[in-house]
Amino acid sequence: MAGSTFGTNFRITTWGESHGAGLGVVVDGCPAGLSLKETDIQTYLDRRKPGTSVYTTPRKEADCVQILSGVFEGKTTGTPISMMVSNTNEHSKDYEALRDLYRPGHADYTFDQKFGIRDHRGGGRSSGRETIGRVAGGAVAAKVLAECGITLLTYATQIGPVRINSDRFDRNEILSNPFCMPDAEAAKEAALYLDQCREEKDSAGGIIECVITGVPAGVGAPVFDKLDAKLAQAIFSIGAVKGFEVGDGFAVAGANGSSNNDAFIPDGESGQIKKETNHAGGILGGISDGSPIVFRAAIKPTPSIGREQKTVTRDGKATTISIAGRHDPIIVPRAVVVVECMAAVTILDLMMENLGSRLKNLKK
Amino acid sequence: MAGSTFGTNFRITTWGESHGAGLGVVVDGCPAGLSLKETDIQTYLDRRKPGTSVYTTPRKEADCVQILSGVFEGKTTGTPISMMVSNTNEHSKDYEALRDLYRPGHADYTFDQKFGIRDHRGGGRSSGRETIGRVAGGAVAAKVLAECGITLLTYATQIGPVRINSDRFDRNEILSNPFCMPDAEAAKEAALYLDQCREEKDSAGGIIECVITGVPAGVGAPVFDKLDAKLAQAIFSIGAVKGFEVGDGFAVAGANGSSNNDAFIPDGESGQIKKETNHAGGILGGISDGSPIVFRAAIKPTPSIGREQKTVTRDGKATTISIAGRHDPIIVPRAVVVVECMAAVTILDLMMENLGSRLKNLKK
Amino acid sequence: MAGSTFGTNFRITTWGESHGAGLGVVVDGCPAGLSLKETDIQTYLDRRKPGTSVYTTPRKEADCVQILSGVFEGKTTGTPISMMVSNTNEHSKDYEALRDLYRPGHADYTFDQKFGIRDHRGGGRSSGRETIGRVAGGAVAAKVLAECGITLLTYATQIGPVRINSDRFDRNEILSNPFCMPDAEAAKEAALYLDQCREEKDSAGGIIECVITGVPAGVGAPVFDKLDAKLAQAIFSIGAVKGFEVGDGFAVAGANGSSNNDAFIPDGESGQIKKETNHAGGILGGISDGSPIVFRAAIKPTPSIGREQKTVTRDGKATTISIAGRHDPIIVPRAVVVVECMAAVTILDLMMENLGSRLKNLKK
Amino acid sequence: MAGSTFGTNFRITTWGESHGAGLGVVVDGCPAGLSLKETDIQTYLDRRKPGTSVYTTPRKEADCVQILSGVFEGKTTGTPISMMVSNTNEHSKDYEALRDLYRPGHADYTFDQKFGIRDHRGGGRSSGRETIGRVAGGAVAAKVLAECGITLLTYATQIGPVRINSDRFDRNEILSNPFCMPDAEAAKEAALYLDQCREEKDSAGGIIECVITGVPAGVGAPVFDKLDAKLAQAIFSIGAVKGFEVGDGFAVAGANGSSNNDAFIPDGESGQIKKETNHAGGILGGISDGSPIVFRAAIKPTPSIGREQKTVTRDGKATTISIAGRHDPIIVPRAVVVVECMAAVTILDLMMENLGSRLKNLKK
Repeated sequence: MAGSTFGTNFRITTWGESHGAGLGVVVDGCPAGLSLKETDIQTYLDRRKPGTSVYTTPRKEADCVQILSGVFEGKTTGTPISMMVSNTNEHSKDYEALRDLYRPGHADYTFDQKFGIRDHRGGGRSSGRETIGRVAGGAVAAKVLAECGITLLTYATQIGPVRINSDRFDRNEILSNPFCMPDAEAAKEAALYLDQCREEKDSAGGIIECVITGVPAGVGAPVFDKLDAKLAQAIFSIGAVKGFEVGDGFAVAGANGSSNNDAFIPDGESGQIKKETNHAGGILGGISDGSPIVFRAAIKPTPSIGREQKTVTRDGKATTISIAGRHDPIIVPRAVVVVECMAAVTILDLMMENLGSRLKNLKK
Repeated sequence: MAGSTFGTNFRITTWGESHGAGLGVVVDGCPAGLSLKETDIQTYLDRRKPGTSVYTTPRKEADCVQILSGVFEGKTTGTPISMMVSNTNEHSKDYEALRDLYRPGHADYTFDQKFGIRDHRGGGRSSGRETIGRVAGGAVAAKVLAECGITLLTYATQIGPVRINSDRFDRNEILSNPFCMPDAEAAKEAALYLDQCREEKDSAGGIIECVITGVPAGVGAPVFDKLDAKLAQAIFSIGAVKGFEVGDGFAVAGANGSSNNDAFIPDGESGQIKKETNHAGGILGGISDGSPIVFRAAIKPTPSIGREQKTVTRDGKATTISIAGRHDPIIVPRAVVVVECMAAVTILDLMMENLGSRLKNLKK
Repeated sequence: MAGSTFGTNFRITTWGESHGAGLGVVVDGCPAGLSLKETDIQTYLDRRKPGTSVYTTPRKEADCVQILSGVFEGKTTGTPISMMVSNTNEHSKDYEALRDLYRPGHADYTFDQKFGIRDHRGGGRSSGRETIGRVAGGAVAAKVLAECGITLLTYATQIGPVRINSDRFDRNEILSNPFCMPDAEAAKEAALYLDQCREEKDSAGGIIECVITGVPAGVGAPVFDKLDAKLAQAIFSIGAVKGFEVGDGFAVAGANGSSNNDAFIPDGESGQIKKETNHAGGILGGISDGSPIVFRAAIKPTPSIGREQKTVTRDGKATTISIAGRHDPIIVPRAVVVVECMAAVTILDLMMENLGSRLKNLKK
Repeated sequence: MAGSTFGTNFRITTWGESHGAGLGVVVDGCPAGLSLKETDIQTYLDRRKPGTSVYTTPRKEADCVQILSGVFEGKTTGTPISMMVSNTNEHSKDYEALRDLYRPGHADYTFDQKFGIRDHRGGGRSSGRETIGRVAGGAVAAKVLAECGITLLTYATQIGPVRINSDRFDRNEILSNPFCMPDAEAAKEAALYLDQCREEKDSAGGIIECVITGVPAGVGAPVFDKLDAKLAQAIFSIGAVKGFEVGDGFAVAGANGSSNNDAFIPDGESGQIKKETNHAGGILGGISDGSPIVFRAAIKPTPSIGREQKTVTRDGKATTISIAGRHDPIIVPRAVVVVECMAAVTILDLMMENLGSRLKNLKK
């Protein structure tokens, strides 16, 4: 249970620190016969690339992925797909001052408590760069899902206190503004808010939403491996996530059964069944119901801030810290693709589990 | 990945339907040498027992647990602890009308889509009775944790729209009112609200909070098996949970780094380190930081309501349904102990993983 | 990794000791839609029943199985199948003398070293009765396999020094003689040999062979979860197994490539491919090749013998022991069905894994 | 269950084909604080290096390992250790003739049956080069074990029909002769036998034995994760292994309980307990008993031989094949270190599991 592997049938194992040789992932269990090339992966990695606006770290990270195994003549072979991104732009000395300090809001202290040793450079394994392996692995999963007619759409619904207005929802906006918000006006407001945060050497949080369409009804295992439970683990395993909800989420607490239940209705003359509403977010009893799967994640403000903060040294002495460095004033825009990729891995893993759910699937 | 097993080192496997012979759990990996008797388990099961107030189902469920293995002369032996509760009060015929109907908000439709067959009596495996195995297994975990100085306190902070006032927080109230609310006044308001729901043949949701004290710093694995990620899966695997958050949770979206970070400070002269605040809810980078672990779960309104709802038959014909039966107008009070038990299993499992985190632990 | 669960997609979790309330198994991941009733299981359990000849223990164990969950109106529902056999004929006091003694060849000493506590009655969890759960779970797997056209044939090829003559192989003999030998003459010789062992208060070992026909080519994962590697774990996890081999097994050490390789040949005009010989035992590179899968397991002599043996007390004092009790002079005949059942679980588990091996299987 | 991961607490995930960019392993769960450098790994990899005698393939494989993560300032940090060996000497065109042919004794046919696609160059994922990741991961495990006072000694006891004479056992010989035989005379005989095989364009098999000393009593889980069962999976997962046995192994079939049981005796005045003999090979009931752990693996003759063999094309047409290439006439000497490394991973994984076996270990 060493914790760097996720998934059972479709499985990713990530490795790497922000200041080592590189970071990567081994994807095991990918079905054979998928067309796959490095640009399929790079497209996803570029979405988490920093340096694209003033609201992300000015660090330049080329983050070029290499596929090292598992693909032969352009097709996956069913054997492990190993992918790697080399680290090229580390300024390890920038972090020397952190060797004996614990940054508030970071994992410095807890890593030391667990392991008795810590790579202090850039957060080591707890760095945001750890997500490179997740994104590379998720890009593969997303490509398999696309072949099955399943698509994921992910965006920010809130940046600091600024929320999108659903009446202005425009999916083309998502890749057009620096916040991945599907609402141009909200994005403008968010920019103003972030400018203020930066001026105050502070940082902001936000909320990411993901909508997955095309998942057939029947995916997810009934008890501990419910589709929403596995999504919860997947999304909560992303650093900085502090909340996760499906469908109406926390709002259900104040709702009534009569308003929260989604009525089943006939889908035209087809004999098929659909739901009239989707308060459930596409999941009933932990199993997909054929409606779009909808979930949200709350992302905390970047803990690295320029403002002076109280902290302690490794030996317990009080001190203060002002984190200069090259840090994102907000993580949300870069986390959008990470959320999408973890969701893709989860859905695919459970779709593969589902292949064995009926005897007739084995008999043919 | 059949989905009825949770945990790696401390592992529970549950089984059973609401209208079969019974329900149970196999606890594997429990450390040897723990004093354990049936009353240790029964105390927890009694907390989820229905029929204790007008706000829970009038079904009488004795739910007496039997320990079938793994305990010898009053001590755990390290081998699997099998526990079982027999079903005694099933009215299977009550459910005959549901054989070919899909209840809104329930898993009837999705089970049929996954398996092509469904035990329609009382929800079968998706019944709330499925949690009996979780509670029995969690009671064992909680007893191990208690031996390690770790305690869990769980209660409702919201029933429908009624929230507790933290100034009136009184832990003695939790077991005194029918809603497990640590605030007597809020409990009274909740009663009024629930009376109204019942009159309107409707149901209500709520929020459960859990605080775990005594967990040493260092528990949780850094990436996919983060303590909060595994808690998220554990809690979201409970039917009816639609949201999960740790520490400040969704509120972090609107916060700033300067207010959200918890400053580290020296703990007196001891050389120990503590945090000045606990916005993080006791977890940093997925690893416990020694502060209390705090999380909340949003519980949806009971989907079974007396009011008429639109639905479809198994073959896709429109119809209506009014669910008479013997159902809880609110699940929250009975779910409190389930949340606590799943948390206990998760914490213990990761504490056992943590034993191997340093070379020196292996060398002795 | 508590060790009482085997399999990933089709998964069995066993529990129980020889002198507790009973023993059982939870089968998780069984495909929905299989006809299953208690007699399907009982048939297998009866094959491991003692008291059927003078060569097995005279203990009477009714070993009636109950299905407690997972079957609805005669069909599996895809949810966990819990099965239990109650203990009815324990003579716990017979074992009182063993409380502070370590029996040679048994797990008494090692359980104490691992757990610091031990249920000394009848070996507790290390008793041969532990296999009841395996057999009940394997009977379910075997029924699924039968639906897929896969059959398992298991028998003894050697009892003590007596080996079967393959020219006399007669499968009808297997269930006709007390040793499950497919050779009536060898069985007679074995009886004479066993009579002598019993007279000398001694015990004997043997070899069990299993042939599995109908497994399609392509089952098994390439590296650590090779079909033969998982079979090796499954079979070696049965107490008393000290050797395992596939196809020509240990004889390959002295063979040459030219004689050991199986030539591929066209299968008539069909365009299909078959092998001319089957030295490989139906597995190439860890994946089934469509030929019968053939393996053997070496079973040690029953460690419980009436003859006086040297041993020590729990506190390290030298003493002697003569085990009276009601013990099998040979385990082999009763282990035959256990071997078959563990093989069935393994094959089915990997067949389910195999469903996800190609993209096209997911797309439909 | 994609099959490229082994172990639970200490876990290796391997990747790579013989003709891709390289091969590697991710080691997850390695305890923090171990001194580790590339030469620690290289020493083990060099033991599997070809080209060291006329009895191994003349291919030159530098096989230089790089540690890419998980080590900081010379110590393991508890995070994943990623290691990689680049492929440098591939002659992919040599294999063009094999694109549409199935080599007898190889996994070509079964990979095609499982995945519908196959990297035909050098066996792809089923190449012997796949073991590079196992050896690199096992070298780390062996270093942890060495810190705990545990050592592994592995050697060939049989090459073709030539067996070592235990009276001549000389451990210094193991690294001195090309067959890793601890008997100089047997090695000379083996050389003569291999010369003859090579002349006849044929190949030979053999037997490898491993002795592990220093493992404390109590390691191994009682049922499916018995120490010998996990070793069986680990060793049988190595390509070319067709048999596995522990202690007296297959010889127990003909033995009696009185001769096969190991008597317990007091270990001097110490109050400690030891065994008078070690027929059990250091494992009782699946748990280590403190004696040396002894097991053997049977290795089949290299399937690639120069002699003409019958086979079929991918579309089922009969043809013949003579494999020129650069192949080992015997795999045994290079497999010795692979066996040792898989054993090391298994032992360490179960030692880590064992940390949680008693309540008192958690309480401190």
